[in-house]
Amino acid sequence: MAASLADAVKDVAFVQENGPEKVEDKIAIFAELDRLAPPDALLASSTSAIVASRFTENLPGRARCLIGHPVNPPHLIPLVELCGAPWTAPETITRAREIYRSIGQVPITVHREINGFILNRLQGALLAEAFRLVGEGFVSAEDLDHTVKDGLGLRWSFLGPFETIELNAPGGIPDYCERYTGFYKELAASAAGPDVYKSPNVDNVIGAWPHQASAERIASLTQRRNERLAALAAHKAQQVATES
Amino acid sequence: MAASLADAVKDVAFVQENGPEKVEDKIAIFAELDRLAPPDALLASSTSAIVASRFTENLPGRARCLIGHPVNPPHLIPLVELCGAPWTAPETITRAREIYRSIGQVPITVHREINGFILNRLQGALLAEAFRLVGEGFVSAEDLDHTVKDGLGLRWSFLGPFETIELNAPGGIPDYCERYTGFYKELAASAAGPDVYKSPNVDNVIGAWPHQASAERIASLTQRRNERLAALAAHKAQQVATES
Repeated sequence: MAASLADAVKDVAFVQENGPEKVEDKIAIFAELDRLAPPDALLASSTSAIVASRFTENLPGRARCLIGHPVNPPHLIPLVELCGAPWTAPETITRAREIYRSIGQVPITVHREINGFILNRLQGALLAEAFRLVGEGFVSAEDLDHTVKDGLGLRWSFLGPFETIELNAPGGIPDYCERYTGFYKELAASAAGPDVYKSPNVDNVIGAWPHQASAERIASLTQRRNERLAALAAHKAQQVATES
Repeated sequence: MAASLADAVKDVAFVQENGPEKVEDKIAIFAELDRLAPPDALLASSTSAIVASRFTENLPGRARCLIGHPVNPPHLIPLVELCGAPWTAPETITRAREIYRSIGQVPITVHREINGFILNRLQGALLAEAFRLVGEGFVSAEDLDHTVKDGLGLRWSFLGPFETIELNAPGGIPDYCERYTGFYKELAASAAGPDVYKSPNVDNVIGAWPHQASAERIASLTQRRNERLAALAAHKAQQVATES
């Protein structure tokens, strides 16, 4: 705990900013960070929804600024998305990747700015379809959850979507595209749009959830989620050790 | 192994059909099954892409026909999607759920016919966005895979998307919708469409995959995937045992 921002960033090599998700706040905080931090320190923001070009453009040290978007809870989910502004130096990304990797995180690089980066865009695509399917009564919210946790999500906990589809056709990804893109084109043509998050659909989704939110429920489920994530991390580490 | 279809379905209570994915074949096979199987046997098709109303309408026993769509590999991924035609009897679905559950599968019910059912619609939504993000150069295919297997997919291996978002806002799902649907609406408004599966995007995706497909590579990775799925199933069973 430091008494001031100047104290906090004195002699540091890396700053991870976690201020409010408002662009004016990011502008103010990064102006201070750029003024106070050692000139070779990297300045990373945890923001999930504000690209770096919106709050770093006018800084003398803008080349050392980037997004380093972690996933909640960051000590249990290793992924961190790195995304620079157009003026972020390539070495900034390279050094940030090394630093995150050295503390056990898994950094990925987003090559151009895009709203939602990668993780939330993938999550959002699945979530919109989930909101539609439950909101329109095709499936219960609980059965939709089963579809993921007892189906799709099993492979995805250790294989990415491209690794997954590579094994779903005898000739790998080119063969998969040949066989199945006709089907997926049809699905994409009827995919859920932004209206699933509006009334009445969003009210249907909220009404479909059979549990009442309470501070006790959320706290106890969050603790159990974190225990499960920690146990899964240990399980995965053991599997990888067996492999090599 | 039976010498004929008549032998195969003699005295059975449940048929799981795995014929070719062509509607004419399903029509021919189900006509035979309905003629030969005991009158109280359920007739389930494994099809992932053909709804039951397209091949059961004219059968005397159409009320006992349904889709029971498993996930590959079915002995390691327990989910089965059940979906009847409009004329499928509710008891058919109820009995099929019981039978699948009794052999350790996790059945879910799709209440109305929809192309792709639930699992492939969710997979397709994420896959389309993945094809776009890689095809347009926002991220490498390997980093996209990391985003899932070291990020999103960890929670999804034991929590569904609704259970996940319930814990991401202090007041649960209603609070989550209040806080974040504005953001997700923006993402949905710019979501990937069917063109991501066409040239040139699909060629970019195929070109972005750094591995050459070969029978040996696919066979060895498939074996490893199945070992990992089996180990994950054991891990999950242990976690659930600890809970209770």
